[in-house]
Amino acid sequence: MLGVYVIQAIGRTTYMLIKARSVVVSRRSRYQQIDVVDTEEFGRVLVLDGLVQSTEVDEFYYHELLTHPAMVLHPNPRRVLILGGGEGAALREVLKYKTVERAVMVDIDEEVVNVSKEFLVSWHAGAFSDPRAEVVIEDGRTFVERVGEKFDVVVMDLTDPYGPEIARALYREDFIKKLSGILTDCGVISTQAGTSFFYPEEYDELKRGLEAVFGRVSAFSAWIPSFGYSCSFIVASRGEELSNLSEEEIDRRLRSRGVVTRFFSGRTFKALLAIPEYRKLSN
Amino acid sequence: MLGVYVIQAIGRTTYMLIKARSVVVSRRSRYQQIDVVDTEEFGRVLVLDGLVQSTEVDEFYYHELLTHPAMVLHPNPRRVLILGGGEGAALREVLKYKTVERAVMVDIDEEVVNVSKEFLVSWHAGAFSDPRAEVVIEDGRTFVERVGEKFDVVVMDLTDPYGPEIARALYREDFIKKLSGILTDCGVISTQAGTSFFYPEEYDELKRGLEAVFGRVSAFSAWIPSFGYSCSFIVASRGEELSNLSEEEIDRRLRSRGVVTRFFSGRTFKALLAIPEYRKLSN
Amino acid sequence: MLGVYVIQAIGRTTYMLIKARSVVVSRRSRYQQIDVVDTEEFGRVLVLDGLVQSTEVDEFYYHELLTHPAMVLHPNPRRVLILGGGEGAALREVLKYKTVERAVMVDIDEEVVNVSKEFLVSWHAGAFSDPRAEVVIEDGRTFVERVGEKFDVVVMDLTDPYGPEIARALYREDFIKKLSGILTDCGVISTQAGTSFFYPEEYDELKRGLEAVFGRVSAFSAWIPSFGYSCSFIVASRGEELSNLSEEEIDRRLRSRGVVTRFFSGRTFKALLAIPEYRKLSN
Amino acid sequence: MLGVYVIQAIGRTTYMLIKARSVVVSRRSRYQQIDVVDTEEFGRVLVLDGLVQSTEVDEFYYHELLTHPAMVLHPNPRRVLILGGGEGAALREVLKYKTVERAVMVDIDEEVVNVSKEFLVSWHAGAFSDPRAEVVIEDGRTFVERVGEKFDVVVMDLTDPYGPEIARALYREDFIKKLSGILTDCGVISTQAGTSFFYPEEYDELKRGLEAVFGRVSAFSAWIPSFGYSCSFIVASRGEELSNLSEEEIDRRLRSRGVVTRFFSGRTFKALLAIPEYRKLSN
Repeated sequence: MLGVYVIQAIGRTTYMLIKARSVVVSRRSRYQQIDVVDTEEFGRVLVLDGLVQSTEVDEFYYHELLTHPAMVLHPNPRRVLILGGGEGAALREVLKYKTVERAVMVDIDEEVVNVSKEFLVSWHAGAFSDPRAEVVIEDGRTFVERVGEKFDVVVMDLTDPYGPEIARALYREDFIKKLSGILTDCGVISTQAGTSFFYPEEYDELKRGLEAVFGRVSAFSAWIPSFGYSCSFIVASRGEELSNLSEEEIDRRLRSRGVVTRFFSGRTFKALLAIPEYRKLSN
Repeated sequence: MLGVYVIQAIGRTTYMLIKARSVVVSRRSRYQQIDVVDTEEFGRVLVLDGLVQSTEVDEFYYHELLTHPAMVLHPNPRRVLILGGGEGAALREVLKYKTVERAVMVDIDEEVVNVSKEFLVSWHAGAFSDPRAEVVIEDGRTFVERVGEKFDVVVMDLTDPYGPEIARALYREDFIKKLSGILTDCGVISTQAGTSFFYPEEYDELKRGLEAVFGRVSAFSAWIPSFGYSCSFIVASRGEELSNLSEEEIDRRLRSRGVVTRFFSGRTFKALLAIPEYRKLSN
Repeated sequence: MLGVYVIQAIGRTTYMLIKARSVVVSRRSRYQQIDVVDTEEFGRVLVLDGLVQSTEVDEFYYHELLTHPAMVLHPNPRRVLILGGGEGAALREVLKYKTVERAVMVDIDEEVVNVSKEFLVSWHAGAFSDPRAEVVIEDGRTFVERVGEKFDVVVMDLTDPYGPEIARALYREDFIKKLSGILTDCGVISTQAGTSFFYPEEYDELKRGLEAVFGRVSAFSAWIPSFGYSCSFIVASRGEELSNLSEEEIDRRLRSRGVVTRFFSGRTFKALLAIPEYRKLSN
Repeated sequence: MLGVYVIQAIGRTTYMLIKARSVVVSRRSRYQQIDVVDTEEFGRVLVLDGLVQSTEVDEFYYHELLTHPAMVLHPNPRRVLILGGGEGAALREVLKYKTVERAVMVDIDEEVVNVSKEFLVSWHAGAFSDPRAEVVIEDGRTFVERVGEKFDVVVMDLTDPYGPEIARALYREDFIKKLSGILTDCGVISTQAGTSFFYPEEYDELKRGLEAVFGRVSAFSAWIPSFGYSCSFIVASRGEELSNLSEEEIDRRLRSRGVVTRFFSGRTFKALLAIPEYRKLSN
């Protein structure tokens, strides 16, 4: 077990060690320490302040589940906002939709975007140079408060709701209200929600906040290997409800919008929705 | 991050650290080191030779998925054999079926059974003293080779197919054939299969071995929090196929056989079957 | 590297993992978590709140160096006070001196003393039942402030000067002054001082505090294997200076006072005094 | 404790975690994985196959103790051979002696030398371009067997005697004999010997091998912070004995040969020689 390892948190006192093969780049931005590490079992990994954000071999699980449920739920997603998502992989997924006319990605840290452009090519896969894409370097909160524009889909690709303070504010009910205010009539919000097993209270709080603003929400989770846990996602909508979309309708929408995926499908997604939430009673 | 930790493997070079609160018992048997550890996030944990076997807070996910698919698939499971399973939790689950007349658990290590009886009460929940249960202390291979008896369901509750050598032999095709030989006509085998993501070749080999003997098999996986991965299970049958069982039929069988579960249900199980296998291309 | 480990700190971001064989006792006192762990390479280990205090195989290095320099420096040590030292090993060392008439050990945590009496027999080696020994369960600060009595030697066997807050107060100059006030005319104080390499500022502050009160002090360090570093010790005296004691005089005093040691001797100690302090420039 | 760490071994089942700040270079040579890591507490670190070789903040302790005892013991060291030592720091130290006319460094891995030249500037400090220095890329064994030349001092700057197989062969008695054969009449050999505490048998075997060939040898040890232990060194001579050199004579030789050191001195070295060996009884 000797050598260079990335140590990351799974739960509160549960950790994961990932063996590194080499470190590709290591840079300190104004906001955080940015490391791109090539690992034995996960290929290339993006690590921000010691927290694994996503990895080459399994980022598609995460980014497909973060974006497609919201994107298929919306009847005609043309304008998409991504908060965070510096790797460009959420952007890559939403740009797969030929309905999309404009996708704005707002990340606070330009350095992360630059590192991604150069070193995480399989993540963005050219998305940054898509003419429909715009990258804004700004705090997501400030952007949402100042922007006049409305969006059909908002994707929150941020650190965990129980993670670094800077992102926590974006999960609070007052900000969710503001987000709701920049949504079009059938607008949909999608967010990752960390692990409901290790952080049940924080997860519940986020879900309640979304329910308070949107009435009803859908939640599901899927194991993301490099996270060490089943990652929860929550989708809230001002229009349709996810539970009303049939397997066939999901597949039809993906097809008609020109979207090809590796993991996400009508069948897989309906299955994920049917699996009970992982819960741990606090002790 | 100071204090006492259990370090266990997730993948080949990926590890998990679980913070211990106290060590309840620590004993060396003829076969292995047996530790029962109370942890911060998983409650009580059974550790054999440094490998987490199961934990108080999530063993029910594992043991329900290991036993119920096979038990509901069989039209009338009366005689059940468990290989391994020293904690007594697989035994607890199969004894929930009022159809069961006899459940034989064969574990090589008497000390594990003794430690479980005394310290893992919520695991066996009295199963060891059920009059239908018999515990045999013997190598599973020897038992299967010598036993005259036939069984309706065989549950393999052993260490991973890519784990310690002692259990590996029980996953090989020649032993699977012997197992098939002690099954009744509609007999069903269920086994855990470790992680198909980190050990795709070893997983495939086990699955191919079962397919070679049984024709077709069903596989599914579910995240087990204390394992750090989505654990695969494979069910092989000489009779019905799992895919033919409807959600309603599964629930009906559970009900009619008097079985109450926490996680397993027709709906959950059909969903698990629908989720694609996690795969990592070796590099 | 699988199994149960004790993780402890060496420096600020440098850690040590010690493989456990079994945990002998694990108890939460009013003040702290107390674990006695049998390890692969250090035998039995006492761990308080995740910090290794001392181990069976190398505690004699630590306790001999903590006590004998002060005990040989004093012309006739009759009354000795130990602050902390719950294991009873510092007590064991000072009671080796036939000059000693009374040795008071003041530890805040009765549970540590009880655990030591039962499980750390080679540490105290019967010292607790020596008629000259008295154990007081009390905060060292309160004891020093209230006690009328004076002592020839005070041994500070506490957690590190940069460690848990509870002990830090006893290293501050104002408390050192109070300690000086309960010393007899030729009184000597000895304290462990953690690692001057990883915590140069904290070490310097403690040394300066002792110098401010006592004029001149002697410092030295020696590698303690289970600490992962060369542990510093500081001796301050109201009488003689350590540097004036010759190798032969140290050995003569040990002999005439009936003291047998395993590591400490005139030769070893003069050598330790001659080795420059380990220093790391902060960066 | 999150982030990137270097995990290295201290003993057999005792490990050290060093927090990395960034990885400067990460390269696989024909022989090994070479990582240069900037760490929080040790500055820049050279890691070969996951083993810390030396670090910016404490390499001088190691390299001074590895070279100067042998260099001062020899009456007039003119020709020096270094086996291993790719960082160039042992070379730097021996070139401090104005008596030295030729210093040959033989390292098997050219890539280590190249990485050192570029990234470990404070280690070699220009030694590689000293006209007296020659670097030979070759297996030390082959070099010693084929070289016609004789040397006054041989410095063995290799991985531990109980470490990777490639270096182990150079510690065996038959190779020591060959080394003795390329020494001039008053020739001296110096080697690091790892930790006598955690590996007493391996240490003893090496020491016995040297004694068998050279009659008598001198051994001492000093804590090297980044190793987590007191590192042993052994010096064997065909001429004078180290114990016969007085403190003053050592200082005089250093001075007259133009050598300035940071840690090594007559006083420090005589002290190190006086400290008993750290020993752990195996259990």
